[in-house]
Amino acid sequence: MARETTIGEDKLIEHIRRRIPSAEGGLLRLGIGDDAAVLRPGPQIELVVTCDQSLEDVHFVAAVLPPEAIGYRALARATSDLAAMGARPQLFLLSLAIPAERMGRWLDRMLAGMARAARQFGLRLAGGDTAQSPPGNPKIGFDITVIGVVERGRAVYRSGARAGDAIFVSGRLGQAQLGLELVQRGLYRQRQWKRWLRPHYYPAICLELGQWLARRQLATAMMDISDGLSTDLHRLCRSGRVGARIFVSEIPCVAVPGELRERGMDALRLALHGGEDYGLLFTVRKSQIARIPRRYRGTALTRIGEIVGGRGVRLVNADGRSSPLAAQGWDHFAEVARRRVK
Amino acid sequence: MARETTIGEDKLIEHIRRRIPSAEGGLLRLGIGDDAAVLRPGPQIELVVTCDQSLEDVHFVAAVLPPEAIGYRALARATSDLAAMGARPQLFLLSLAIPAERMGRWLDRMLAGMARAARQFGLRLAGGDTAQSPPGNPKIGFDITVIGVVERGRAVYRSGARAGDAIFVSGRLGQAQLGLELVQRGLYRQRQWKRWLRPHYYPAICLELGQWLARRQLATAMMDISDGLSTDLHRLCRSGRVGARIFVSEIPCVAVPGELRERGMDALRLALHGGEDYGLLFTVRKSQIARIPRRYRGTALTRIGEIVGGRGVRLVNADGRSSPLAAQGWDHFAEVARRRVK
Repeated sequence: MARETTIGEDKLIEHIRRRIPSAEGGLLRLGIGDDAAVLRPGPQIELVVTCDQSLEDVHFVAAVLPPEAIGYRALARATSDLAAMGARPQLFLLSLAIPAERMGRWLDRMLAGMARAARQFGLRLAGGDTAQSPPGNPKIGFDITVIGVVERGRAVYRSGARAGDAIFVSGRLGQAQLGLELVQRGLYRQRQWKRWLRPHYYPAICLELGQWLARRQLATAMMDISDGLSTDLHRLCRSGRVGARIFVSEIPCVAVPGELRERGMDALRLALHGGEDYGLLFTVRKSQIARIPRRYRGTALTRIGEIVGGRGVRLVNADGRSSPLAAQGWDHFAEVARRRVK
Repeated sequence: MARETTIGEDKLIEHIRRRIPSAEGGLLRLGIGDDAAVLRPGPQIELVVTCDQSLEDVHFVAAVLPPEAIGYRALARATSDLAAMGARPQLFLLSLAIPAERMGRWLDRMLAGMARAARQFGLRLAGGDTAQSPPGNPKIGFDITVIGVVERGRAVYRSGARAGDAIFVSGRLGQAQLGLELVQRGLYRQRQWKRWLRPHYYPAICLELGQWLARRQLATAMMDISDGLSTDLHRLCRSGRVGARIFVSEIPCVAVPGELRERGMDALRLALHGGEDYGLLFTVRKSQIARIPRRYRGTALTRIGEIVGGRGVRLVNADGRSSPLAAQGWDHFAEVARRRVK
């Protein structure tokens, strides 16, 4: 934490430090309390570094989500990018902007959720920055930088897919989007939908799967599905200068209850374009496909299509006809802004 | 950059990438465009990592500061923490929240200022995260993570000061606070004060000095003065479990023009409690004092006092009498909030 001491800020940082694992050791030679953290990396490792914002009214609605969920998912979102590289999480830096009125019980509950995520992911807090949101604009903002390690040369990039590779996804797609839409439609208060909210509140990220695929060098390309399959598959293809075809019949869609289907929650739409499931999207050489199990530690691994030459993504229907699949997932800066809280 | 592609966001990230140095090489094995950056550190180095927020209406007034200054100082503020460790800047991650109406000319000017700082500090952009500020709350927010390197064991911590060490500061103190107060009092529009704004707009950070002190192992403790000498010296003392006395007559204060002195801008107050000069505060063993020059590359190095046993900071007046010096610099969370934009 760069700004430290004097009564107010000092107390806040001490408060955070006591609640979130932050002991020095291993990679972390010097932690919270100085101008910066000092890391001593081993000789055979590479560091993997990423950051992710979670802003009130952009990424979450503070009035709806429990503070524990806000803290948990802020850290999970950022750490998912390490899963997508096959890295083991080590440290994180927390930048927090918080209004005065959230400093008491709200802060404690948020930190409890974040601490749970940190323990679960094996992360220690190494530093950060705190600021008070101005009274005229009392919004909460997180920016979290996560640092992981991977054996030299074993990180899995987005760019490695080649024509002929099979395309896999982990888990069921569209679950988090279903939860988000329950929030947006005000249905989150109804007890019957409570369990459907969980994937939105506490996203499950795929650290062990990502590390396993990287260690065994099974994935030629990998990324996490954060903005929706349609958008993220386009990214993976562009990155590798390849195209893809995926099969409607193979996509592992969220199971939408009948009552919600009637309200327009279509499973295929949610699965193709809904973001924040944080499953992994990865490609596998044909010769290696047999080494991919149907499930990895309880999570389904589903082959949904294949990488092809050329460009673009096509969706193949049950009748064998295919059509281009547009990137219709989340985009902060889309020209026709699809405004929604995610 | 974690979120990439699709028309809008993709364009923004490509835009940023073209304007700010971001080529892979050296420490940076994989840069912008994947889930995370990959770093390959050498065997004899340590990494130094820090992050710093710059939020509209908290750290800067977007209606007053030129966009170039906002971009420059956001990066300078964060990088100053590396100077304070004696590290060489290498890479940074940029998290940016930006409203739609700032996406054109304002963005370009801001990036030009940030690119200038990046080139000056030797930093390459390795990744980040972008989000659009919601229309109802169109504020700009930066969070910047900076990564530097230092030879194993050579980073200078805050905690190393011992009784008997001499206390030094670099540069003149209170200059940035003077600029800030010209902004706050609406005097920034008057041409005659223009040059006094510069230390607030484009803070000069002390990278070379910090690296020189670290390399030669001349500083026992070091930090940058970001929140004001009174506040930061307390931090340095607390960190080393020591006390300090400093001499009013030795403090290198900003030269305040007579007209501004009459308006209550007191040089000693500005120097003791004004933040954001980003000079270095460091301590030196008695036996090493002769090795500290009066100036280092044009910047004055001034001995202002000494570390003592016990706790607390005392200010010694011209008549030899001393009194406790309270930490009255910037604190986001002070119980009596000293609200100001810094």
